[in-house]
Amino acid sequence: MEKIFLALPGNEILASALAKHTAGSIGRMELRKFPDGETYVRINDDVKGTKVILVCSLDYPDEKLLPLNFLAKTAKGLGAAHTCLVAPYLAYMRQDRRFQKGEGITSTYFAAMLSQFVDSLITIDPHLHRRTSLTEIYSIPTTVIHAANKISDWIREHIDNPLLIGPDSESAQWVSSVAVNAHAPYVILAKARLDDTHVDVAVPNVEMYKDHTPVLVDDIISTARTMIETIGHLRKAGMRKPTCIGVHGIFAGNAYDDLLSAGAAEIITCNTIEHRSNRIGIDDLIAPIL
Amino acid sequence: MEKIFLALPGNEILASALAKHTAGSIGRMELRKFPDGETYVRINDDVKGTKVILVCSLDYPDEKLLPLNFLAKTAKGLGAAHTCLVAPYLAYMRQDRRFQKGEGITSTYFAAMLSQFVDSLITIDPHLHRRTSLTEIYSIPTTVIHAANKISDWIREHIDNPLLIGPDSESAQWVSSVAVNAHAPYVILAKARLDDTHVDVAVPNVEMYKDHTPVLVDDIISTARTMIETIGHLRKAGMRKPTCIGVHGIFAGNAYDDLLSAGAAEIITCNTIEHRSNRIGIDDLIAPIL
Repeated sequence: MEKIFLALPGNEILASALAKHTAGSIGRMELRKFPDGETYVRINDDVKGTKVILVCSLDYPDEKLLPLNFLAKTAKGLGAAHTCLVAPYLAYMRQDRRFQKGEGITSTYFAAMLSQFVDSLITIDPHLHRRTSLTEIYSIPTTVIHAANKISDWIREHIDNPLLIGPDSESAQWVSSVAVNAHAPYVILAKARLDDTHVDVAVPNVEMYKDHTPVLVDDIISTARTMIETIGHLRKAGMRKPTCIGVHGIFAGNAYDDLLSAGAAEIITCNTIEHRSNRIGIDDLIAPIL
Repeated sequence: MEKIFLALPGNEILASALAKHTAGSIGRMELRKFPDGETYVRINDDVKGTKVILVCSLDYPDEKLLPLNFLAKTAKGLGAAHTCLVAPYLAYMRQDRRFQKGEGITSTYFAAMLSQFVDSLITIDPHLHRRTSLTEIYSIPTTVIHAANKISDWIREHIDNPLLIGPDSESAQWVSSVAVNAHAPYVILAKARLDDTHVDVAVPNVEMYKDHTPVLVDDIISTARTMIETIGHLRKAGMRKPTCIGVHGIFAGNAYDDLLSAGAAEIITCNTIEHRSNRIGIDDLIAPIL
């Protein structure tokens, strides 16, 4: 089936790479706001009978949902056979139950909404947390791709004598598999989250690894507070400047600059969210599934 | 049934007025953004078995949809018997067909989304355009309230010898009914829309009404370009400074100040979108339906 990629703003590079890998084409479209804040969409290619692939990472998701819905519905209205959302970073994966009375379970609500207007979803390493699978909340077919081996490869090729440092017990299994494939040891932080932007961390047994290069790995770098705290501990312990690696680099506010200022030797992300730190390509993992 | 009003930001005054009229209460809730741009919601009142009334005018709608969905779903999840959206201004009523090949029919898509997560909708004078009823696009019960008589009353009480001026043939019926109840004559502009922000207008027979106070009326004041153009024509014709009245004052960008600078004597709106121009209350029209 002919593949037509629609790149939402900020996803043009990834969409082009995917189109190239799959011999698909980049669809021409208009997406703009009227002066009153309403969105206008128009698809300028014939999508009848095609597979329309919407490429849209879902960092800062709130303002993206309506344009996505409009484009998907427009494509189907114009006769597209299938609409697939490639959202390398998937939003609203954290609030998966009521931690406090009265809270909204936003991961469920968001998944229900997306499931209502696209036919399938592909994503990279969603933050599954207490859930075991996206099928618990998504009613459409979903495909989850893992970047772990790509990260291991990058570490093996670029870092001399690495020590992997994972953020919390929840990520231990993931960090250990990245470490095994990178032929490197790893430690897991002892961590206490104080609020949305503050965390308290300790690096166990770090003195055993003075001759190693610390590599902080996490699935999401958002405020970067955990990594910044960790760098402080590593410096006090007399360790080398660390490399910081995230699958998804959100970099809320000034997180990227703050992380460099705190003493990161280098900040590396997968190209799931377009950013100058993108150094690990995952487009070749997505392409075979399309 | 007990009524609990949840006021989305910017709708607090209207929600309070409605709660007062109906002996309901204002629900306590939290609505905030995480640093990564995701929305957090929490309802801090027991809504079990109640009617939860979400008060949210839909000017600049794109960023409001997700919080609205989350609050409605949370309320239902906590046992609310019914969720009603009071959206005095309803968005996405203009694009009701493909004017050009490939365009999205956003009024249909938006209505389908809203219909999926609230149980009923109340709005004031939606811009129906080519549609005859909201039921063509909304699958939930909807109630449409008209502000015309309120506007007539205001004109009768405040304007000496008014001449109503309506923006286009589409609004002629509405303007004529406002005029009849205001005991005033009216004219309809000859108007050509050049693009999103530019219009060309002419005021027919205006020289017959030199001793009248022009009152420009429209359902929506968005960029205010039509009114500004019209004022230019009125001034050239030697007419008095006009009063400008809109049901819904969106005032995109600097529209409010531009309209004053252009020579509006006064700008008056209904309280459908909170603004300093609100002078005509419609809350007492909504209350009996809740």
